[in-house]
Amino acid sequence: MKPEQFLFGCAYYDEYMPSSRIDEDYKLMKDAHMNVIRIAESTWSTWEQNEGEFDFTSLINMLDKAREYGLSVIIGTPTYAFPSWLSDMCPEVLTETSTGRALYGHRQLIDITNETYRKYAERVLRKMLDIIKPYNDIIIGYQLDNETRSGGAMGKDIQKVFAQRMKETFNGDLDAFNLEFGMDYWSNKVPSWEAFPDVKGTINGSLRAEYKAFLRDIISEFHAWLKNIIDDYRTPSQFITHNFDYSWLGYSFGMQPEVNQAQAAVSCDIAGVDIYHLTQESLTGAEIAMGGSIGRSLKKDNYLVLETEAQGRPSWTPFPGQLTLQALSHLSSGAGSVMYWHWHSIHNSYETYWKGILSHNLKPNKPYFELAKFGEFMKEHGNDISYLKKTCNVAILLDNRSLTGIDEFPLNGEEAFKGDPEFDYNHMMRRWFDACYKMNIETDFVYAKDDFSHHKLLIVPALYSASEATVKKLREFVKKGGHLILTPKSLFSNEHLKVYHDDQPHGFTDLAGATYDQFTNPVDVGFTGSLELTGKASGIMEFYSPLPTEKATVLCSYDHPYWGEYAAVLRNGTVTTVGCILDEHDTATVVADALCNAGISIPDASFPIIVKKGVNKQGQKVTFILNYSMDASEYVITDDCKDLITGESHSSGDKVLLPPWGYKIALT
Amino acid sequence: MKPEQFLFGCAYYDEYMPSSRIDEDYKLMKDAHMNVIRIAESTWSTWEQNEGEFDFTSLINMLDKAREYGLSVIIGTPTYAFPSWLSDMCPEVLTETSTGRALYGHRQLIDITNETYRKYAERVLRKMLDIIKPYNDIIIGYQLDNETRSGGAMGKDIQKVFAQRMKETFNGDLDAFNLEFGMDYWSNKVPSWEAFPDVKGTINGSLRAEYKAFLRDIISEFHAWLKNIIDDYRTPSQFITHNFDYSWLGYSFGMQPEVNQAQAAVSCDIAGVDIYHLTQESLTGAEIAMGGSIGRSLKKDNYLVLETEAQGRPSWTPFPGQLTLQALSHLSSGAGSVMYWHWHSIHNSYETYWKGILSHNLKPNKPYFELAKFGEFMKEHGNDISYLKKTCNVAILLDNRSLTGIDEFPLNGEEAFKGDPEFDYNHMMRRWFDACYKMNIETDFVYAKDDFSHHKLLIVPALYSASEATVKKLREFVKKGGHLILTPKSLFSNEHLKVYHDDQPHGFTDLAGATYDQFTNPVDVGFTGSLELTGKASGIMEFYSPLPTEKATVLCSYDHPYWGEYAAVLRNGTVTTVGCILDEHDTATVVADALCNAGISIPDASFPIIVKKGVNKQGQKVTFILNYSMDASEYVITDDCKDLITGESHSSGDKVLLPPWGYKIALT
Amino acid sequence: MKPEQFLFGCAYYDEYMPSSRIDEDYKLMKDAHMNVIRIAESTWSTWEQNEGEFDFTSLINMLDKAREYGLSVIIGTPTYAFPSWLSDMCPEVLTETSTGRALYGHRQLIDITNETYRKYAERVLRKMLDIIKPYNDIIIGYQLDNETRSGGAMGKDIQKVFAQRMKETFNGDLDAFNLEFGMDYWSNKVPSWEAFPDVKGTINGSLRAEYKAFLRDIISEFHAWLKNIIDDYRTPSQFITHNFDYSWLGYSFGMQPEVNQAQAAVSCDIAGVDIYHLTQESLTGAEIAMGGSIGRSLKKDNYLVLETEAQGRPSWTPFPGQLTLQALSHLSSGAGSVMYWHWHSIHNSYETYWKGILSHNLKPNKPYFELAKFGEFMKEHGNDISYLKKTCNVAILLDNRSLTGIDEFPLNGEEAFKGDPEFDYNHMMRRWFDACYKMNIETDFVYAKDDFSHHKLLIVPALYSASEATVKKLREFVKKGGHLILTPKSLFSNEHLKVYHDDQPHGFTDLAGATYDQFTNPVDVGFTGSLELTGKASGIMEFYSPLPTEKATVLCSYDHPYWGEYAAVLRNGTVTTVGCILDEHDTATVVADALCNAGISIPDASFPIIVKKGVNKQGQKVTFILNYSMDASEYVITDDCKDLITGESHSSGDKVLLPPWGYKIALT
Repeated sequence: MKPEQFLFGCAYYDEYMPSSRIDEDYKLMKDAHMNVIRIAESTWSTWEQNEGEFDFTSLINMLDKAREYGLSVIIGTPTYAFPSWLSDMCPEVLTETSTGRALYGHRQLIDITNETYRKYAERVLRKMLDIIKPYNDIIIGYQLDNETRSGGAMGKDIQKVFAQRMKETFNGDLDAFNLEFGMDYWSNKVPSWEAFPDVKGTINGSLRAEYKAFLRDIISEFHAWLKNIIDDYRTPSQFITHNFDYSWLGYSFGMQPEVNQAQAAVSCDIAGVDIYHLTQESLTGAEIAMGGSIGRSLKKDNYLVLETEAQGRPSWTPFPGQLTLQALSHLSSGAGSVMYWHWHSIHNSYETYWKGILSHNLKPNKPYFELAKFGEFMKEHGNDISYLKKTCNVAILLDNRSLTGIDEFPLNGEEAFKGDPEFDYNHMMRRWFDACYKMNIETDFVYAKDDFSHHKLLIVPALYSASEATVKKLREFVKKGGHLILTPKSLFSNEHLKVYHDDQPHGFTDLAGATYDQFTNPVDVGFTGSLELTGKASGIMEFYSPLPTEKATVLCSYDHPYWGEYAAVLRNGTVTTVGCILDEHDTATVVADALCNAGISIPDASFPIIVKKGVNKQGQKVTFILNYSMDASEYVITDDCKDLITGESHSSGDKVLLPPWGYKIALT
Repeated sequence: MKPEQFLFGCAYYDEYMPSSRIDEDYKLMKDAHMNVIRIAESTWSTWEQNEGEFDFTSLINMLDKAREYGLSVIIGTPTYAFPSWLSDMCPEVLTETSTGRALYGHRQLIDITNETYRKYAERVLRKMLDIIKPYNDIIIGYQLDNETRSGGAMGKDIQKVFAQRMKETFNGDLDAFNLEFGMDYWSNKVPSWEAFPDVKGTINGSLRAEYKAFLRDIISEFHAWLKNIIDDYRTPSQFITHNFDYSWLGYSFGMQPEVNQAQAAVSCDIAGVDIYHLTQESLTGAEIAMGGSIGRSLKKDNYLVLETEAQGRPSWTPFPGQLTLQALSHLSSGAGSVMYWHWHSIHNSYETYWKGILSHNLKPNKPYFELAKFGEFMKEHGNDISYLKKTCNVAILLDNRSLTGIDEFPLNGEEAFKGDPEFDYNHMMRRWFDACYKMNIETDFVYAKDDFSHHKLLIVPALYSASEATVKKLREFVKKGGHLILTPKSLFSNEHLKVYHDDQPHGFTDLAGATYDQFTNPVDVGFTGSLELTGKASGIMEFYSPLPTEKATVLCSYDHPYWGEYAAVLRNGTVTTVGCILDEHDTATVVADALCNAGISIPDASFPIIVKKGVNKQGQKVTFILNYSMDASEYVITDDCKDLITGESHSSGDKVLLPPWGYKIALT
Repeated sequence: MKPEQFLFGCAYYDEYMPSSRIDEDYKLMKDAHMNVIRIAESTWSTWEQNEGEFDFTSLINMLDKAREYGLSVIIGTPTYAFPSWLSDMCPEVLTETSTGRALYGHRQLIDITNETYRKYAERVLRKMLDIIKPYNDIIIGYQLDNETRSGGAMGKDIQKVFAQRMKETFNGDLDAFNLEFGMDYWSNKVPSWEAFPDVKGTINGSLRAEYKAFLRDIISEFHAWLKNIIDDYRTPSQFITHNFDYSWLGYSFGMQPEVNQAQAAVSCDIAGVDIYHLTQESLTGAEIAMGGSIGRSLKKDNYLVLETEAQGRPSWTPFPGQLTLQALSHLSSGAGSVMYWHWHSIHNSYETYWKGILSHNLKPNKPYFELAKFGEFMKEHGNDISYLKKTCNVAILLDNRSLTGIDEFPLNGEEAFKGDPEFDYNHMMRRWFDACYKMNIETDFVYAKDDFSHHKLLIVPALYSASEATVKKLREFVKKGGHLILTPKSLFSNEHLKVYHDDQPHGFTDLAGATYDQFTNPVDVGFTGSLELTGKASGIMEFYSPLPTEKATVLCSYDHPYWGEYAAVLRNGTVTTVGCILDEHDTATVVADALCNAGISIPDASFPIIVKKGVNKQGQKVTFILNYSMDASEYVITDDCKDLITGESHSSGDKVLLPPWGYKIALT
């Protein structure tokens, strides 16, 4: 049920074209050694322009020709955008939030729990699945929806479902609910399950966060619902996937707040990801590595890159060589495919300036020719360097409830959503990920539910929300010898963002060997101590003091007339505890110290030279040496190896010169 | 009916606790020599979770135990937050503004004129007052509501009341109303009192300001309504108060725009205030002094500090010693209490990171121990240094209509609310207050209605709105020898913000000895003249020219190729007129000049040493010398005195060294 | 039907006055040699305070006295602001946008297609026109509405009209419409003309832009409707005008986006304009020249300045001499009038701080005296220097659909309205206009529909939207020898903002001698090449390469390791093509190069000395030499001439010294 061949291709939209030119386009793809297209999502109004009037001509054309040109096809469900006649018929299809009912137009403003939506979505989907059955020879898989969202739906109907869930969670005990969520505050006590107040205006961060968690859950359920429908049609060899995406800062940046991806991926045979990133001077490979690690984390397996940029936004126009370097970056993280969004640039609407491989004139251009050359290379070497298996000593713990927790209760103590973006969950998490990335320590991402006992070092960034079960699991990890870095704001509240009312960090003071009951926002505060921290504390300073009953070593204290008595970083056995946000250098220093403590060696090479490793199907160790730089960079070979392309042998200690944005792939 | 004992305590919320622990908490309070708690406001949904179902168990527990531990109690009315069943039953309870009907959740989004709200609020209040009657021995007073607001209510019903008020104000003369408010402009003429247009969208600044004044008035009426209910229950020894708060810049900054506090305080026996301020390096005492002066202004008497911060926001975590310095700062302004918001940090909802005395672990911590020490000190000295009577030579005139006026007609001439915050009313007012504060000139605040004839110098900041009666009163003050500083934008419009159509400043050109009919926003304009102004004009330059008929002295002119002919500062007899906004140094220079002219001597010591004086019940002069600095500061004793704590005698000329954030209290 | 006399006056509002003082005001006007007032617009609620109750007393008074004092009158239609009883009666009168129904209060929030509005507007207008008939001797003209707007109306009724227009445009071919607008994208395909979806929420930039074009069209129709009504009343000698205004950056900045002015001016006999600009150190004359050129462009004739500032906003208070310099600046652009908004400052409401000639005290002041002196001068010389005819070698092509296009598809490729304002259409256009202005090259503005064959050089700024017909017209201009500067983003999409899917610039690659299919946003990119460009590329870089089949000369390339192979500026015969946004210096360098190529000589004098020329009714050449500077500036006479005021003769080569903000007017 999973793809095994390297997939190289793009999304294709015959229906967006100024005029149909399938033959011309497919021929260009084949010439570039592409072997797969992704079609049919977001096209409901094309298949069903008026209610009940179906026309799949364009789809059939695309499939007929795909067979002719030997292209495999991934079929998307046409569910994430919907025709205007549907919301004309039933306005409740559109999400309602605290700012009112959404206006028709944008995608993913659907209440995906709405019954009318479900009814008509199922009808068009089944019609389509029925009609494409004859193409099972070329259809290799299905994509559930597209970057699924709940649209922040807070209408009456869906809120009833939420109230019911709360009732179930608390076994009908309203007092317990009111106490757990602190509803007495400002007279917000819930009178009864039946009169559960509209949460649109709530000032209760725990409740709002719980609602967001609920919205994440319904996405997983929606995926399961779609999967069940597809299961009625698909053959055993056809896989199901979904294109998971990331938090967005104009590019893929961190964990997606609106989806519980590991849960939503249960309905997939293989995870897919959409990764967009800066290029030109700003191409670092970090977002590709982060997105890849998250991709691997979802099914603990390889993943497909279902979307990434060819040209993309105007500022992303790639330098020569970058498209190749980017594709190899994906593969070195364990990807099984590189698929571009999208084949051709669009001539109207929202993404006119999110360019595809072809520019608006639809002719072969520089990106096309570079990709064609890469396609030729992959035709020969695809099996050697795709679907690589990876083993990492270090894992970073991700948690969606903690992300929401930091949004609701930002470090500066302001009300929800007024925090400094520099100190949101993903920015704090990225400091640790990036530090590892730049020193060539490859990392896995794990979730509290996972087994992470085989990792040597676990980094726990901003785990604001930690259930008792999670605390217990972390304790066990440490007790069995695992190394752990505990960072600020961790273990502060439970799964409902109720702050623990005993000593912080909750349930961990003995392992940390320290505790605190005060904190502040630092202003120009540096460090003293044995660990050479050169920067300033930022975001928050937790006033840690070692417990007299433990033997914690204070690695660093604050350089401050009053706060100097508190520890900034301390180590107790295998646990390193950090009380403030550190800058890039200092984060790396703490990571290096913990790695050293955990017996993990740190490579000599560091960014802009990035080294990523995996094992291919033939059992060969594949090492990618990637140069993310405008300048040529020298790299010293660490193990005897053979160059994949030239076949040349290198011995440990050999120096090789990588051209700007260049690479070397070594086999051992 | 007024408290006489020094009150030391905090707000307490049994109902917010993760589990009830009244005994433990009260014991800690007693150990810290606290003697009062404030309870019961914002708890409606706790007392009446469903309509008509009352349960005051938690309240009774708190009172029973308070008697046991010897704590006095101030009871708040549970009216500023309301249960969701009330707005479910009657959505009109929620305020409607130009952006629509408020969503349930936040506090103070109530239309306090709504009849349904009043009906149910009265019922729960009377139930509560009835039930707590047996505790009259420990209940020392009541607090009306909490930082009362109108929520900007602009629904249909309340607007009808407004139209009726307008009709009364103008004795039914619609033409007079239309003329006074300039309603012909852009075809906005009101057709009839019955068809008074919705003011939500008005572009008429006078009308919007009048509506805001109306909203202030209904707060005063609401207070009177609450007082009348309480009067049915209270004993003669129980006082009524209210916790008045300030304009908010992340901390208490200036006059509260939404409440006519002096009017709303008519229903109180003693005024209460909520003062929050920056701490750490930013602790200056200025906000405490300003808030205290406003507190004194409301009843021309002492006041209670009902809320101030212990730890508060993360960035406010106090340095050692600051909590003590802050408490003394309040007392030195004439406070009768220091009460913290709040006892314990909250584990859920909106103010989780507005920490109380105890941190989230609910154990004694550094702030608790410092306050306990302060409590011990006050147990001995409380009567000597609380409820001090103060006499100030200088007064600053405050005016709410002028504040709104500057909001509606900002200095840059842009439409409402697009002004530069640096030049809003409170910022302009604070320049004068702060100048006095830093040179150790203590000031009173007065209102136009007050008798301020006993002050030697009256500072009039930005009195944009001045009725003919006010102008007359200011004239009389000057004519009787009073000194006055008239600042920019003063006496420009009448009480309805209709600009006066004669020479500016209206009705004062003879006393100012000057007039202007043009002004501009200065760009890099300095000064020339006898008064040594070193900065630049900002905000506005009024083009003052001396009247040939008067003998005004131009103290400063503008340094500008074209505007050089105009006066920036001039003096005519006892009136100093300032035509532009001055920087901190230049404001102080003008104040010093006026003080000198008025025969008021300026102390040698200045900020960070702050000296504040008062007379205690025993008739002793108490002098607080407060060091708002990270560094020790030397102070030269000016009068023979005795140290309150050590009993040590000091002679004039003695030098004493105050430690960082330290203080000395001297008796003479 | 057109005015011939120089008109000097102001807008006058008896109804806004704190008390009526027509005699006093008219006398002051006459003393200042004013000869015209503009009255009656925005006064509907004064004429008809309640539905059907008419009272024109104030209007009659103003007219009676105008006759007495010999003032001519321009009558505005009272239609752009409306009484509250109208929207109380029919809420649909108020515009509805994506943020909801407008609230009553502000002007121009009317759906001008609403039938109820039209019915009552026509009634009050006909009543008024009827009543003022006896004053035809003094009424010289009418003004249609005032700065007419559509208020962004998107209610149901008006959207039906829009759908009908679309159906007509596409001859009922729905498939053609869906294809042209790319409606398949994100499932937005229109099901039927009858079920045309609400465009309020559309994400289709082409469709939103089309709706904006439709809103511009209804303004033209509304003007025609008003004109037809006035035609029933006016005498042959009475003209119709309208006060067109500009895009607004706190002052008049560029082409008005919301009105198709050339089309709306069809209903006028003479165009009128409202020009507001910075003064003091920031007075450059550029906005006056730009506004004047647009004024001339509308009817290809002289124009009236119906509104300009006397004092205006606080920051605009003029330096001595500036009012005179400004008035002459208008005349030198071909104006037939200078009329101020407004006579007196207002004492209430929205524009209290948009001061008129008189300040709030309503007495003669410095501006009045300066204007009175100017009036005296114009009494003598008015006929010599007003209604000048101008001939420009250079024209700049303006296009409203391109302006919307750049708004919808900004250079950074972000979604609509998130572009950098520095790179919006008007800012890009102004770079070219300002470059010409500062080197004393006077320019006309032209539209695609115009005949511009007589111009030597056509500058085409950001013509993002160009129909095939427009492309053809530009081709013909070049083929007949015309010189043309083609700037970035030009000829990129058709009239419906559908990007052309052949080589860029569409239909012009042969004439440009170059093409591109990639572009990016430049980061720190300079130039190399024969043209001396000293700055950096900004906004966008189009990757131009010369066509091998043409003989284009690359004047400048990018200084960049990868983009260095592309041309920034190239010339092919008479066409100069520019691929990026240039700074002020570099824009001027390209203009100078093109002028040189076109055989147009560049004057020696440049800003702050501005030279503007025209021919008066007597056939004399009038040259204005204007000094926009705080410093005196020397000017070298270029042609033998006579000073208009002194009668003094000057020979070519003579040096004259212009005082700060001074001027000289020369006749030849």
